[in-house]
Formats: sequence, C-alpha cells, structure tokens
Amino acid sequence: MGSASNDQQHKNFLLSKIATNHGHGEDSPYFDGWKAYDKNPFHPTNNPGGVIQMGLAENQLCFDLIEDWIRRNPQASICTTEGVKEFKDTAIFQDYHGLPAFRQAVAKFMGKVRGCGVTFDPNRIVMGGGSTGASELITFCLADPGDAFLVPSPYYPAFDRDLKWRTGVQLFPVICESSNDFKITKAALEVAYQKAQEANINVKGLMVTNPSNPLGTILDRETLQSIVSFINEKRIHLVCDEIYAATVFSNPKFISIAEIIEGDDTCNRDLVHFVYSLSKDMGFPGFRVGIVYSYNDEVVNCARKMSSFGLVSTQTQHLIASMLSDDEFVERFIDESANRLATRYKVITRELGKVGIECLKSNGGLFCWMDLRKLLKEPTAEAEMELWRVIVHDVKLNVSPGSSFHCSEPGWFRVCFANMDDETMEAALKRILNFVGKLREAEVPSGIGIKSFKSNLRLSLSSSRRIEETIMSPCILSPRSPLVKAKT
Amino acid sequence: MGSASNDQQHKNFLLSKIATNHGHGEDSPYFDGWKAYDKNPFHPTNNPGGVIQMGLAENQLCFDLIEDWIRRNPQASICTTEGVKEFKDTAIFQDYHGLPAFRQAVAKFMGKVRGCGVTFDPNRIVMGGGSTGASELITFCLADPGDAFLVPSPYYPAFDRDLKWRTGVQLFPVICESSNDFKITKAALEVAYQKAQEANINVKGLMVTNPSNPLGTILDRETLQSIVSFINEKRIHLVCDEIYAATVFSNPKFISIAEIIEGDDTCNRDLVHFVYSLSKDMGFPGFRVGIVYSYNDEVVNCARKMSSFGLVSTQTQHLIASMLSDDEFVERFIDESANRLATRYKVITRELGKVGIECLKSNGGLFCWMDLRKLLKEPTAEAEMELWRVIVHDVKLNVSPGSSFHCSEPGWFRVCFANMDDETMEAALKRILNFVGKLREAEVPSGIGIKSFKSNLRLSLSSSRRIEETIMSPCILSPRSPLVKAKT
Repeated sequence: MGSASNDQQHKNFLLSKIATNHGHGEDSPYFDGWKAYDKNPFHPTNNPGGVIQMGLAENQLCFDLIEDWIRRNPQASICTTEGVKEFKDTAIFQDYHGLPAFRQAVAKFMGKVRGCGVTFDPNRIVMGGGSTGASELITFCLADPGDAFLVPSPYYPAFDRDLKWRTGVQLFPVICESSNDFKITKAALEVAYQKAQEANINVKGLMVTNPSNPLGTILDRETLQSIVSFINEKRIHLVCDEIYAATVFSNPKFISIAEIIEGDDTCNRDLVHFVYSLSKDMGFPGFRVGIVYSYNDEVVNCARKMSSFGLVSTQTQHLIASMLSDDEFVERFIDESANRLATRYKVITRELGKVGIECLKSNGGLFCWMDLRKLLKEPTAEAEMELWRVIVHDVKLNVSPGSSFHCSEPGWFRVCFANMDDETMEAALKRILNFVGKLREAEVPSGIGIKSFKSNLRLSLSSSRRIEETIMSPCILSPRSPLVKAKT
Repeated sequence: MGSASNDQQHKNFLLSKIATNHGHGEDSPYFDGWKAYDKNPFHPTNNPGGVIQMGLAENQLCFDLIEDWIRRNPQASICTTEGVKEFKDTAIFQDYHGLPAFRQAVAKFMGKVRGCGVTFDPNRIVMGGGSTGASELITFCLADPGDAFLVPSPYYPAFDRDLKWRTGVQLFPVICESSNDFKITKAALEVAYQKAQEANINVKGLMVTNPSNPLGTILDRETLQSIVSFINEKRIHLVCDEIYAATVFSNPKFISIAEIIEGDDTCNRDLVHFVYSLSKDMGFPGFRVGIVYSYNDEVVNCARKMSSFGLVSTQTQHLIASMLSDDEFVERFIDESANRLATRYKVITRELGKVGIECLKSNGGLFCWMDLRKLLKEPTAEAEMELWRVIVHDVKLNVSPGSSFHCSEPGWFRVCFANMDDETMEAALKRILNFVGKLREAEVPSGIGIKSFKSNLRLSLSSSRRIEETIMSPCILSPRSPLVKAKT
C-alpha cells in the first residue's frame, strides 16, 4: 500500500495542481448517477429493468421537425451534392469571428427566443466550446484567481468545473430558500456579498441562470431589476446564463436581462454579459455551439481572441446559419417545442401530484424540481443521499439530489423529463408511483423508514414487471395523449 | 488624454489580468501580416494588386479528392436523406470520450500517416478544440503557473497564446541555428535547461514540433533518440506536436516519436504526449479537430475531463469517423497530397533559386523557410522588420518574418505555398522575382539599400501589371504542369 501510494504521489508530482486537485467536480452524485445509468441503461425491450436516465437535461422532443427540415434543405449542408461546393471554403475557414451568416443567424435567433423586440448585435456574438467553454471563457475574461463570483443556489453542478477549475476563481453561494420559492432576493444577495467581504474575498461578479437550472423557474421583472441595481451599486459584473431561454413553455413570458438593460439608462452596460448555447433550446449539445455575448467592447475583443480555444466547427456553423435563418421553421420549432414541453410538465406534475408529491411551480427548463422532503428520515444531507441511493439503485431512476446543486435545503431532486420517449416516460412514472406507494405502506411515525422500505422494495422489485404492468392505468397516457403524438 | 487613459485603466480594472495583459500575442508581425491581407486581399481578376496571403499554413491542394468522396458518401453526413436517421443520436451525443467510431478512425489514421507499424490506442485519443485547444489542454495538465516548457526556436508564433496565455506557464527557447540547419542538439537543450535552472525556473517539459513549423524539416532518428534520453534524464515531459505528420512529401520518411518510444524500453512513457490535429494533414482547420494523445493514464483521464471545454462537434466527428475509416480513400489522399506538395515545393524553390534565393532544405510542412539574410541592410531584427514591411506593403506578399517565430538569426522568412491556387502562386512568384530583380538593380556596397529600393519599387509597382505579365516566363508553369493539374 505504501509503495502504491508513493507511486501515486510520484506520478502526481509530474502533473499540474489542476490535474490532481479533483476540481473538475466529477466526484459528485450528479455524475455518479450518470455512471449508474451508463452501467445499466434502461431499454424498453432489451433492458426493461435498467436505470432510467432522468439526470440529463436534454431536449429530445422535436427532432422530427429538425429531421424534416434537414430533408427539405440539402443545400444547408456542405456534405451533400447540393452543398458540397461550399465544402472547401467552409473547411478552411478559421477566422475567430465566425462565419458572418452564423453570427447573424444566432443573433436573430437569440432575439426571437426572447421576444419583445430585444435585439442582439452579430458583432458581439463570440463563440465558445458549448456553454461549458463559454462559461469558462467569460470567467477568464473577468476574474483573476482567488476572485469570486456570487451564484444563487441551487445552481448547476458543473459550474464548479466550468467557472472554477482552470480559472482559479471561487464561487460564493447566494442562499435561496423554498420559503419564498427560491427567489433571488436583494437581502440574500447582500448577505452573500457581505460574507465574502468579511472573508476578504474580492467579489468580481454575479452569475445568474435564467431560466434556472435546476428550478425551471424564470426571474420576474422586479427581481431582474433588483439584480441589475445590485451589480451596479457594487460595481461587479453580471453574467446571465440564458441557455434555457427557449424552453419557457407557459406564462408568464420569459424576460431576458437584455430587456431590462435596454430599458435602463442608468445601468453600466460594460458590466453585463451573457452565456448562450444551442444545447438546450435546440437540443444540440453534441454540436458545441456556445456563445458569449457582452455589451463591453473590451470583453468582446478579448473573448474573441480567447475563442480560439473553443471555436464552433465551421461545418456546424454553416448548418446552423442556414437553419436559424429560416424564420418560418424557427417560429414553428419554438412554438411546438414549448407545447410539447408543457405537455410533459403537465403529465409529470399531475401524476406525481396523485401520490402527494409536489414540484416547485415552474414554467421553463427541461426538468421539475421535485419536493421529497416528506420522504426524508430527517432533514439532513445524509438522509437526502440515503434516499437518493435508493432511488438510483433500487427504483432505478437517475434523478439528481439537491445537494449536488448546492441546495441549502435537503429533500429536493431534479427530474429531467425531455430526454426520453413516451414509453420511457411512462415506465419512469410507473416506478415513481410504485415507489411512493410502497413507501407509504412502510411509513413509520417519525417520517419514512428508508431501511425498512428497502427490504420491502427489494421484494416488490423482484416482481417489478408485473407491478409496472398493472400500476399504470391507461388513463395516464392514452394513445391520444399529446405525449404519444409528440413521439411521431 | 489623461481622462481617456484613466477611463481605460478604469475599464481594465474591471477585467482580469489575462484579459488585459496582451498575452494572446496578437500584436506581432505574424498576425499583422494577416491583417494587411484581410484589408486588401488579392484576387486574380477583382483585385490583382492586393496582398497575396503566404502567411497562412493551409493545405488546400486536395479538396477535389475530398469533394469527390463527399459526393460518393452521402450516408457519411447526418444532413442528407441517407444519413439523417443518425441526426438525433449524433446531435445529442455529448460524452467527452467522443464517438467510438471517431476515436477508432482517428487512431487508425494517426498510425497510417506515421507508417512503420506504429499503432495508436483509440482509448487514449482525447479531443481538444483544434490544436490550439489541445496544446493548451496538455499544458494545463502538466504544468503550474510559473513552470516552464523548453521550446526549440524558431517555433510557431501562437504557442505564446496556446501554451502561455491562460495557463501562466512560461516558454524557454532552445536556440537552434542555421549553421547546422537548425538542428535540435543535445548541447542546445542542455544550455537552455541550465539557463532556466539558473533563473530558478522549474522546467516541466520540452515541446517539440515535428515536422517543424516554420522550418518544414523533420527530426532524424538520432535527434529523436537524443531528445528522448534528454527528457528521461531530466525527468521532464515531452510534448510532441505532430500536426504536420502527413505533409512530409519526400524522403527521408517521417519518424514519429511513437516509433522511438515503442523501440525504447528504458523510456518512461508516462512522460510522453502528443498533440495532433486534422487542420494541416487534411486541410480542415475550420472543423477544430484537435487531439491530445498520452501514454500516461493519469493524463488521459484528466485531459478527457478537461476536453469538455473544447469537444469536437459530433456532426464533424460523425463525418470524420466515416471518411478516415475509408482505407482506400485515405491512402490515395495521403499519397496525392504528398505529390502535390512536393511539386509546389519544387517549383517555388527552383524559381527562387533562379534569382539566388535559397531556402532551408526541407521535406515537410506547407511552407519554405526562405533565407533573405543577404538582403538585409544589417544583420539585426530591425533590418528584418524593415525588409518585411517592404515585402508586405510594397511587394504585397504576406510572408512571416523569422522574428515572429522567435528565430535567433535575422533574415529568415516563412513562405506558405499550399493555401492558394496555381494562378495566385504564379502571381506571387512573379512578385518575388520582380522584387529581387529590382533590389539587385538598387544594390549598394554595404548590402541592399532598402530605402533607395523603396522609391524604385514604387515606380515599378505603378506599372506592376505590365511587369507581372512579362517577367514570368511560360516555362515556369506550363499548362501541363502538375501544379495546374492539381487545381482541377
């Protein structure tokens, strides 16, 4: 053991501190759940007992529309007979400004998604390698190692990787609580800022995700205004991650920070920047279209130079330029995507409601923020993890525990609902309903007894197929359900 | 002025040190020459007096082969009727391991390009955002801020951006000289290492580009062996940038560091890593296919996590997987590309030779290393820059001065020859020959008088079209020349 450990130290000595400090944050239940899925992925016929992936915020509901567009637009690709004449000029294009048509189309799309006449300047569109690369890029531009960004919690687990790992920047949580639906209050911002000051940490900015991941909620006008006035008072940056802008599926309408800025002459625009992406709104995470948009000329200038580390493939830029400049398609896609997301949200919250499980009321994102506080043995992070392990390993649903989102209150779970087809969704709902039903049977006075439940569950799971067949009534998802239609 | 400067300081205060330290290195004649081209780009009919771009190491000679392959393989793209069924699964694929077929195809291609039975393990293929992203990624893995990498000079100008800017790592030149054809000698390595030690700099590795950019030369077996023994003795990393591996167009054959490592049991493989890319070998810089390959498991593991910042678009991965696994096409492409590069090299060196301009003897890369020492007023960096300005602004050829490659001897220039069609090549050669001819006329005893030349040149350039029409004899590039054929 000693020599193995020496060997490890010896090897680590050869590598950088970044390589050996585990700052990538992959050792978290958020990613462990993904691994559990990868080891035993559910398939309706080949592996019906496998883990269902509800930990991945993917938007898979509208690929029929996209594939139809692809078929009708062969000239949009450089790899078709119709488009190959553009192959060479596209393949050799390496200007970090990006294809002008790409920047124009993305700027227009960003405006369209945000509505209300907000416009974006194509000359401020800077490419990053997905939102991961874009988030790191803007952090590198704005903050030095040791500086901090305030981040309202709960927040996206991989911010630890994206914003901190290689930049050396710290994240300082702004604690939001369920008592007021996790709103970002001025008071919470002030408390976080003061705490950082007291700890001698130089706060360089505030990072806000709107619509929120994991909450699925959007910020109202008043909150946005208070955020803008806060960052102006403190003279710190505001980075607004709006990568879920087009996932808002019901009223109230989404308000972009851009709308607030455009109506506020007192705001110092040099402080305001966006992260955007097509990974969620269009469902193309594989294409790595990340965008930094800044009102600050110096930042645009520097970010563009930095974008050399994560440019978008020109093959992809070329396709996206064409697709997003098709107004008719874009409008239809945005509408239909919202409709299908609304239906999913409605079904999942209704079914969960039937067994007494509430979700935070939300109208955006690709997930629900599920309240399982009542199922915890005690209101602790440990109890949350205990419950989470049962859900992942026994119920075989990979949902993500609130602790992985730095949520201050135990018992909340993010449940993704747009990364699967209707059959898988049905199977997942059956499992949740079955799980809660069994828990109720095993309920003990001092909350739910997870341990006693686990043995019951094992028994029930041994005959899980039969249970799944019987517990899910046809009324939940009839063949005429919009969910079933969405699949076609 | 004072208030403008304060305003600038005020703005800079808001940004990071990285954003304001100019470490991106764009303020160099290497990039200034690109800008001169961008402002006034040559076009044979629309702008025949514009700047010809010979500062861009692009490989444009074989796009006819690639376009032909594209036409014959519609299923290779997810944007064709034949391939669209793969669209969804490709667009949503975001696993940082990359598509298995992509890794396999790239590993196979890397082996094929290097010949001699060298094999690469697909599980060690890690994606980076182009070689720019890949170079930064491996540096982040291996070195801490303040650590240094030795780099034989002359070297690629943008290493200052790629290896230093955001990592905080230093580069320490290993001075190579024309007296022995810029060979990397053990003595030069030792001198650089000792100097770094004396300056209290922690040397963490050696970065070698093979084939060399800007020299176009390849490292011989003896040099490679001495490099491997050097890094083992010092226990520092070796990063071998082999992004020009397939551009070797004549004998002797290219020897990859992989071949040396595989035959050397005494080498500590944990110290050896590659940077690879398809930007030069295939001519796809826009596609941002950068690769890190390491024999060190820890580095592979960390680099893969880090690759989230610069993944290759899955649309591009999918295409490349298909293209590079077509053995027949790949072999034909590599052969034909070498043939066409060889022809270009032969023509350019022969024509330059006619007016007494020598290039360093080379057999790889997409450029010549042109010796204009005899044309300098005096052997200084200033004189080199003076000559360079004449070449860019008056002769209107964007070549890159040796100083931008950190070359220790003034008077060398990199001239790219594979990023243009034959007509442009002809026009460029005419201008060089004309330029040198005029210089000779204006020659003064103490070297060339650039100033007196400039006035002569202005006169001659006012009638430049006539000169270009007459000075270039048809024998240089006949319609039967392979160069002309390469265009079809």
